[in-house]
Amino acid sequence: MENLLKGDERLDYLVDESLKIIQSPSVFSFSLDAVLLSRFAYVPIQKGNIIDLCTGNGAVALLLTQRSKAAITGVEIQERLSDMAGRSVEVNGMQDQVSILTENIINLPGKLGTGKFDTVVCNPPYFSSVNEKDYNENPYLAVARHEIHCTLEDVISVSSKLVKQGGKAAFVHRPQRLMDILSLMRKYRLEPKRLQFVYPKQGGEANMLLVEGMKDGKPDLHILPPLTVYKEDGQYTEELKKVFYGK
Amino acid sequence: MENLLKGDERLDYLVDESLKIIQSPSVFSFSLDAVLLSRFAYVPIQKGNIIDLCTGNGAVALLLTQRSKAAITGVEIQERLSDMAGRSVEVNGMQDQVSILTENIINLPGKLGTGKFDTVVCNPPYFSSVNEKDYNENPYLAVARHEIHCTLEDVISVSSKLVKQGGKAAFVHRPQRLMDILSLMRKYRLEPKRLQFVYPKQGGEANMLLVEGMKDGKPDLHILPPLTVYKEDGQYTEELKKVFYGK
Repeated sequence: MENLLKGDERLDYLVDESLKIIQSPSVFSFSLDAVLLSRFAYVPIQKGNIIDLCTGNGAVALLLTQRSKAAITGVEIQERLSDMAGRSVEVNGMQDQVSILTENIINLPGKLGTGKFDTVVCNPPYFSSVNEKDYNENPYLAVARHEIHCTLEDVISVSSKLVKQGGKAAFVHRPQRLMDILSLMRKYRLEPKRLQFVYPKQGGEANMLLVEGMKDGKPDLHILPPLTVYKEDGQYTEELKKVFYGK
Repeated sequence: MENLLKGDERLDYLVDESLKIIQSPSVFSFSLDAVLLSRFAYVPIQKGNIIDLCTGNGAVALLLTQRSKAAITGVEIQERLSDMAGRSVEVNGMQDQVSILTENIINLPGKLGTGKFDTVVCNPPYFSSVNEKDYNENPYLAVARHEIHCTLEDVISVSSKLVKQGGKAAFVHRPQRLMDILSLMRKYRLEPKRLQFVYPKQGGEANMLLVEGMKDGKPDLHILPPLTVYKEDGQYTEELKKVFYGK
């Protein structure tokens, strides 16, 4: 198993002990955002097709196997990261269910066709621009975090092309982009249906949003119960543990 | 004092015992929405001008006197309701601070001028259409609740005209209209800055939103902590009491 690891990589548990993931502090590690997105999205349970855009080291794609038997495709533009994701799929013995593609998501509709997926999920780069210094210091993180190879509009436009009529597209993003994300989803016919805000602690502002749209759905937006992450003592709240570890 | 009351009207306390308000079960009674809006909006403390559109029986205008010494104008299209509001101003001896106008808000920029108000607030009609039967049964409630005389776009467009550069406009509405309200606010240059969702009970979906925009403000949206109204035993939560009764 250890031969699977390169450089400063290590094999971590992914949330609980049933999944493992290859991580590297200098290249990429999954975040809370990925876990929450994997729990939030509606997925077909028994069969179907799911695609995870900007999969990074594959956390969302791997986590979705806990909720669905559908075929899952994870797409990552950075070969260094998609290589980690592919080896994590092997570590977990999930080659039959999960495939990792190294590709710019903009090319996907041309390569995979349109209207093929029941569910599209994406934890996209959050920040619009990056300065040269940060890029040079760590291009892996810069590409993962900043809209260098794809903008939010690219993510939403591509998601809309990939998803079936009536299928779902779910995204995680920062609340500052709420207006952009909602208006782009409507523009690309992914009508927002479920919106949830994540609050780091009780009494503070939200620092994350989860939103799901339906392709050509009718306007009917539901604001889900708020999700608070940490108790005052810094431990996860019971509600977060429930989301993380399920029942 | 009793001569101030007409028909089935009664004199109620407005939140606490420091304010009274004339209400009528058949014509109009204030709701939680009005109280929350009056607590949510930023107001000038010592001086300035505030306008409350669609004031109904004047609840928001009256409540704002607890937070501001500014001149407050309440505007209501229905004379039966503005008459109640005017008498409530008298009951509380607030004629020097609060004025009630009977007017269609669409005419306000022409009559009052543009860019004159520090703060505009509005608890508008929530529902887009009304059927004839409901209208005939109770036209007062129908006009207050349905977009008969003014649409959400009218409310936001008029608010934008009335408010000063850098001034604030705050609205309360249903979450189903989140997309409309945010996009209309941006369209009319009231950039959304603060957004709060109100949840009737823990673990349920939001049934109300409070949003505030700044005239020609820069995009920077904050999602405030969620506000839960009722505990499981049906009593108000401590956080709601704090909003209602202050510190």
